Amino acid sequence: MSSEPAPAPASASTEELEADLSAATISKKQLKKDARKAEKAGKASQRQQQQQPQAEEADPFAANYGDVPVEEIQSKAISGRSWTDIGDLDEAAAGRSVLIRGSAQTLRPVSKKMAFVVLRQSMSTVQCVLVASADAGVSTQMVRFATSLSKESIVDVEGVVTLPKEPLKATTQQVEIQVRKVYCINRAIPTLPINLEDAARSEAEFEKAEQNGEKLVRVLQDTRLNYRAIDLRTPANQAIFRIQCHVENKFREFLFLENFIGIHSPKLIGGSSEGGASVFKLEYNGQPACLAQSPQLYKQMSICGGFGRVFEVGPVFRAEKSNTHRHLCEFIGLDAEMEIKEHYFEVCDIIDGLFVAIFKHLNENCQKELETINRQYPFEPLKYLEKTLKLTYEEGIKMLKEAGTEIEPMGDLNTEAEKKLGRLVKEKYGTEFFILYRYPLAVRPFYTMPCYDDPAYSNSFDVFIRDTTYEVFSCS
Amino acid sequence: MSSEPAPAPASASTEELEADLSAATISKKQLKKDARKAEKAGKASQRQQQQQPQAEEADPFAANYGDVPVEEIQSKAISGRSWTDIGDLDEAAAGRSVLIRGSAQTLRPVSKKMAFVVLRQSMSTVQCVLVASADAGVSTQMVRFATSLSKESIVDVEGVVTLPKEPLKATTQQVEIQVRKVYCINRAIPTLPINLEDAARSEAEFEKAEQNGEKLVRVLQDTRLNYRAIDLRTPANQAIFRIQCHVENKFREFLFLENFIGIHSPKLIGGSSEGGASVFKLEYNGQPACLAQSPQLYKQMSICGGFGRVFEVGPVFRAEKSNTHRHLCEFIGLDAEMEIKEHYFEVCDIIDGLFVAIFKHLNENCQKELETINRQYPFEPLKYLEKTLKLTYEEGIKMLKEAGTEIEPMGDLNTEAEKKLGRLVKEKYGTEFFILYRYPLAVRPFYTMPCYDDPAYSNSFDVFIRDTTYEVFSCS
Repeated sequence: MSSEPAPAPASASTEELEADLSAATISKKQLKKDARKAEKAGKASQRQQQQQPQAEEADPFAANYGDVPVEEIQSKAISGRSWTDIGDLDEAAAGRSVLIRGSAQTLRPVSKKMAFVVLRQSMSTVQCVLVASADAGVSTQMVRFATSLSKESIVDVEGVVTLPKEPLKATTQQVEIQVRKVYCINRAIPTLPINLEDAARSEAEFEKAEQNGEKLVRVLQDTRLNYRAIDLRTPANQAIFRIQCHVENKFREFLFLENFIGIHSPKLIGGSSEGGASVFKLEYNGQPACLAQSPQLYKQMSICGGFGRVFEVGPVFRAEKSNTHRHLCEFIGLDAEMEIKEHYFEVCDIIDGLFVAIFKHLNENCQKELETINRQYPFEPLKYLEKTLKLTYEEGIKMLKEAGTEIEPMGDLNTEAEKKLGRLVKEKYGTEFFILYRYPLAVRPFYTMPCYDDPAYSNSFDVFIRDTTYEVFSCS
Repeated sequence: MSSEPAPAPASASTEELEADLSAATISKKQLKKDARKAEKAGKASQRQQQQQPQAEEADPFAANYGDVPVEEIQSKAISGRSWTDIGDLDEAAAGRSVLIRGSAQTLRPVSKKMAFVVLRQSMSTVQCVLVASADAGVSTQMVRFATSLSKESIVDVEGVVTLPKEPLKATTQQVEIQVRKVYCINRAIPTLPINLEDAARSEAEFEKAEQNGEKLVRVLQDTRLNYRAIDLRTPANQAIFRIQCHVENKFREFLFLENFIGIHSPKLIGGSSEGGASVFKLEYNGQPACLAQSPQLYKQMSICGGFGRVFEVGPVFRAEKSNTHRHLCEFIGLDAEMEIKEHYFEVCDIIDGLFVAIFKHLNENCQKELETINRQYPFEPLKYLEKTLKLTYEEGIKMLKEAGTEIEPMGDLNTEAEKKLGRLVKEKYGTEFFILYRYPLAVRPFYTMPCYDDPAYSNSFDVFIRDTTYEVFSCS
């Protein structure tokens, strides 16, 4: 909750309390009395302030709206009322009286007697309609109160669900709420550093506006990061975080069912965790330490320790001064490690099944999230096969060669070649997800096993998803 | 897998390969040929070495045992054989032929013609019996080979499952394997720094031995940590890690079903994340940075960012020089944060339900793990109620006072008082899990809301489990 805790009355500071209470128990009662008296006085003056505008015009429906005083949200009582999630409001709810809580996204006065308020909760928005009417208990003062709220204020609305005559374009939910009561839990400051509408626009909307000679406000990355709590409220960000959580859930579930155990390896370590990458160094009680740049060795220790199969989801720290779309100083790694019984394809099969399970899970459980992201950042659905395509490295460079890109047969693929291979595979096999295996040993690090039939190649594979490669090393 | 990758033949170092290949394609073929030739020569000499002892005595069953050469575990082929988990071997498997892979825990020669080998996989052990017999294809050389293995070597056994005449005390599985084939995948060094039997003993076993005048080896903490990959193999450690994973799984599942979203907040941050605790400082590209000592502010930003309810499982770093059982420099925090609609008991109820769900899950799904831990570290099952007991702080100090412990009414409970209260509650209510709420405001930090009816108290609660308190602050 964004409301500030009410300060304790000055006459009952906690230090004084302790002093008094240690003297005698009778003073405790007196103190409580005093405290209550002070509190009541405070509440009364608060109420007076809030009701002043209404008092002027003697509104018989004054109880149906207003700012909720702090003590009312101070865990005073459990009312037993239940709130409906805005995302759950659909045609089936028509005619029902509901109570919702959301952020005031838009406030649109139509006349003295009518106004629209769009409330948002996570990715969902609903239109609330205020029409002054004695039957409904809605006064013109109440309409004015509602439109006087600042954007992004937290608002409770009680009302009846109705179906609109025409489809609503501005909200996700295709119902309206005929408002009976409206209370503001917490007012936002009148001018916010980010306007949510600006932060939620797609490139297409910017282009369209430009073509019409309009100039729309762009919220740049710095502003977004400086006011992250506001930027997070855009529907796309709400959806992205939910999808991240779903990916992690499915990753854990799939591997757990395949007898993997989730571990958490140390992040504060005494040495550097993998050769090559540079590390963040720090002081640990007078001794040099660094942040783990990979759980690799700990995963291997777990396997050596008898766990058979382990996974880890946790932060990875990289101090490299690299600046590619595949480098971040801190990211969340989804890592897995397993014993191989006789062939590294066992790992291949797990990774393959894992990715396909995640793709399916997202398609089946996150349609709303995918559509929400698609509105701001359009994308095509990922193409993948039920049985994942596996190509040898040799086949891959052959495809590239036939398409005019000559690759050093024992060299590595650069990012450009990887992307081109991705396009070629998509054209030929209709998939954006595939596995390339049997890399030249020369381009794999020290812990990769050479192929039994040709030590120039290695028991290794990488996973390709659209334009991105995920490196998976393998040894047996 | 713990086997070392085979080094590439000296005549085909990767640098030479690249140089040759860039010169002409024909050299590639030649090189491959050379490499294969070199490899074959290597294999032949390896085989000769392994077969030398058998060659002396011309064993007709030589193919049924031996060390597996590296190329055989180099992903040469997929045999299609399937391994049975040792933990799955039960009476229902009697008469079946199985293939298992495990670590050689004990090797006990009985005579030239008979030996026992106990194989271990995670928390499970099974007795393998070798009896020399032409019908079974088992020679005396094979018996000798099996007992010549070093402890903790990785071994494949093929054999027939039989039921023992008497219950087996030394193994978890109540079946035996009549060995037909035995192959060593990887030999452990002959003398290990830790003997697993020593590392797995309970205090009771040490005491009993002492009473009998025996002196058993104790593996101390330093040794355990220096050889963690071996220490992890003890059954109790195997079980503890599995239970940790189950706790995290249930934590995530319960909260996700309650509409919480899992997040990962930054661990590398620009300031200190919470007042009070000291932090690990480091340099981030020339700027001062520190490690997050709590996800608190990020969780609150997420709530403010419209997520409603979030949880996080991730590392927490504390640089305090404290030395209690409740302080660690790095630990995995299971954190949750939620919007309150009207009363902080909403949080209380979630936390209550969460803990009870975890207790139940462990009792229902981890009996084997709990029993395994109990053998080395005996404990009583946790007593908890279906409906968790909630006591006010005032009730708590009243109980302590009646039992002779005077607590400053507006002061905090020290560890000793908390433990005593835990014992009193267990006696009176029959539970070791309860919630103490309405703490004095004076002992809660700045962001706790005072009670609406008495600002000397706060909207807060702590969770007590047996001897441990988990602090949960709450404001609304």
